[in-house]
Formats: sequence, structure tokens, C-alpha cells
Amino acid sequence: MRIVFPIFDGFTSLDAVGPYEVLRMLPGAEVVFAAEDTAPVTDDAGRLTVTPSATLAATTSADVLVVPGGPGARRNLGNEALLGWIRRIHATSTWTTSVCTGSLLLGAAGLLDGLEATTHWSAVKTLESYGATYTEERVVRQPGGIITSAGVSSGIDMALRLAELLAGRVAAEAFQLAIEYDPQPPFDSGSLSKASQDAKDYLTAR
Amino acid sequence: MRIVFPIFDGFTSLDAVGPYEVLRMLPGAEVVFAAEDTAPVTDDAGRLTVTPSATLAATTSADVLVVPGGPGARRNLGNEALLGWIRRIHATSTWTTSVCTGSLLLGAAGLLDGLEATTHWSAVKTLESYGATYTEERVVRQPGGIITSAGVSSGIDMALRLAELLAGRVAAEAFQLAIEYDPQPPFDSGSLSKASQDAKDYLTAR
Repeated sequence: MRIVFPIFDGFTSLDAVGPYEVLRMLPGAEVVFAAEDTAPVTDDAGRLTVTPSATLAATTSADVLVVPGGPGARRNLGNEALLGWIRRIHATSTWTTSVCTGSLLLGAAGLLDGLEATTHWSAVKTLESYGATYTEERVVRQPGGIITSAGVSSGIDMALRLAELLAGRVAAEAFQLAIEYDPQPPFDSGSLSKASQDAKDYLTAR
Repeated sequence: MRIVFPIFDGFTSLDAVGPYEVLRMLPGAEVVFAAEDTAPVTDDAGRLTVTPSATLAATTSADVLVVPGGPGARRNLGNEALLGWIRRIHATSTWTTSVCTGSLLLGAAGLLDGLEATTHWSAVKTLESYGATYTEERVVRQPGGIITSAGVSSGIDMALRLAELLAGRVAAEAFQLAIEYDPQPPFDSGSLSKASQDAKDYLTAR
């Protein structure tokens, strides 16, 4: 069970680490963080630096592909080497998935044309520019083994669904217990439709 | 606003990255991943390798200390160098916090004696061996600026509360929107009291 996360400078750490923390518990899981070369990769905040476990070139197949987002994803939308790699891995995968603006990379690779998909709320127009129809759901599963999820933290919810698909419901429930995922956010501000105008204005002003 | 995460081999990635993804958005946030030396640190699954941004020795104060857990936390409960560092940083901090079994390190450092605290559900007895009273809540705030949180994913909820304490409610709500934290777990298996016996047995058998 090979689970591959492509990483690149400017990726959002939680996009990758959220689903990683679930999927690594799959029976026989072999996790690969693959990057253009083996030099350390730094996230979008410039503070978390991860050492890739393989190069993209050496990573030729995946059972599960999880593409994280972040400003680095947007910067790579014209990176034909990365997009071609995504297409090649998708041809081998059971599930090709994305978190947050990782879906833009799937779109740029041509994998979302004519499909429903989701992304971070700030990236809807770009997503639709690739022929996808934005669906305001947390996790969107489509034919062809493609699953996209919404912003950053949604990757945890997606990974639990993937775990059920790959190892059954009891296993997925066990993984939820293992990470004690009984979310109790102190506010109800996690989506555009729920957040206050003040909260939106705060982000805009940053 | 210096936010310090001590990391060590065998830490649980999401324990650190969950709160990191929230707290890094605090105004003026300076995030430090501090380790014994500057050699890369590998997490409990052996797959995610992070480069520390500073040594413990060079890190002499924090506004917010966030201690992650994992098997590596348990292995360090007798590491006097680390425990002494935690005590010294706590003396400088506004908030000293933990995620998951990170609370065992706070306990071993003597910071939880006589306090209420929480931890991963599998570590209750060890937590109480340090004089703490286990409280089955997701986030437990105590006098003296100490906040402990439950297993792995609870660090996100804790970080949002911390963000409110440090930057106000609108900021915290904005951060929740930024990471689109509108959790929708597909199952309701995130705590010992909610999980099925089958799910518990699955974990026990691993």
C-alpha cells in the first residue's frame, strides 16, 4: 500500500500531515514524501522544513496519491514536469486525491475536466478554470478514483473516508480513535458561509 | 511572539503541525522547532523527517511553548536535559501547552503536580503518576498558564483557543476560516466513550 505525497517549497504542512497521520496506519502502509530532488523542502510559512524520502523521478507508482496545496501549489500550476508526473502516477493509482489547493494541480494536470471537485474557498475560480465544477462539500468523490477535499484541515476527514474505502469501517473508526479526532472547535467559523464578516475582513486585511 | 515546539525522534507529526498551522498566523509569530541538536528529527512513523530550526540550548525563552507527544515523548520522560529545558522555558512563557502525550513531559518536568490535565486516552495512568488529575476534556486550562490537550488532533482545537487568548476572538475565527476547519468526520469514533468495541479491539490487536 504505497501512499505518495508530492511536496514542494511553499506547500501547506497540515495539508499533508493531516491525512498522513491517518493513512500511515493503513495495513502495509508505505509512505513516500516525494520531491523534485532530495533537498529539504520548506513549507509556506518558511518554518517547517521536511526532508523528502524520494525524488519524483524515482517514484513511479502509487496506490494512493495525496497532493497537498499551499502557495507553492499555485506557483507550480505551469510546472509541466510536476503535472506530467501527477498524470503518470494517476495512471497507476487506485485513489488520486488532493487537499486544499492541491486540487488546482490536479486540474492543471487535466484530471478534473468535467468533474465535480472542491478546493480551498479562496481558489474556486482557478479550480473552475480547469473545467471542474466547484462543489461546496468537504470531500468530493468522483468516478475514476478522484477525491478532492476542501481547505487545509479537510484532509483529515478525507483520509478517514479513504481509510474506510481501503481497509473497512472498523479500521477507519480505529484510526479516528487513535488520533482522538473528536473535534470541538471553540467557534463555528470554519467555512465562508459560517464565518463572520469581521473574520473575513481580518483575513483580507492581512 | 515566539512560539516554540520542542521536537525529538518519535514525536507525532500532527501533534506539532496541527497547532503550528494555526499559531503561525498570530501577528508577529516567530515559530521555532527546537531539538537537542540541529540534525534532522524523524517522527514516530519513521517517515516524516523535519529539520530543527534551533537547538534547545539556543532557545532560552518562549511566549508560547507547545510540547508534542508520541512514543518519543514517553521515551524522554527520564531525559533530565529536556525536562530541565522545559522548566526553564516555562519560567519565561505566557502559555505552556501540550498536545497528546506531550503532557507526560510537562508532568515529568513537575509542572502538573496538583493540577487538572488531559492527555491521549492511552496515557491516563502515566499522567496521574505525576500528580495530575486526569480530566476527560479536549482542552484543559489551568492556573499558571498551563494548557493541556487530548490526543493528537486536539492540538488544533487548543491552538484556536490560544489564538483567542493571544489575539482576540475575531483573529481566532479568521484563522479557523483560513484552515477551513469545519470538521466533518465521517464516523463518531473519536473518543474512548464513543468508539465501538470493534474499533478498540482493532487498535489493541495492532
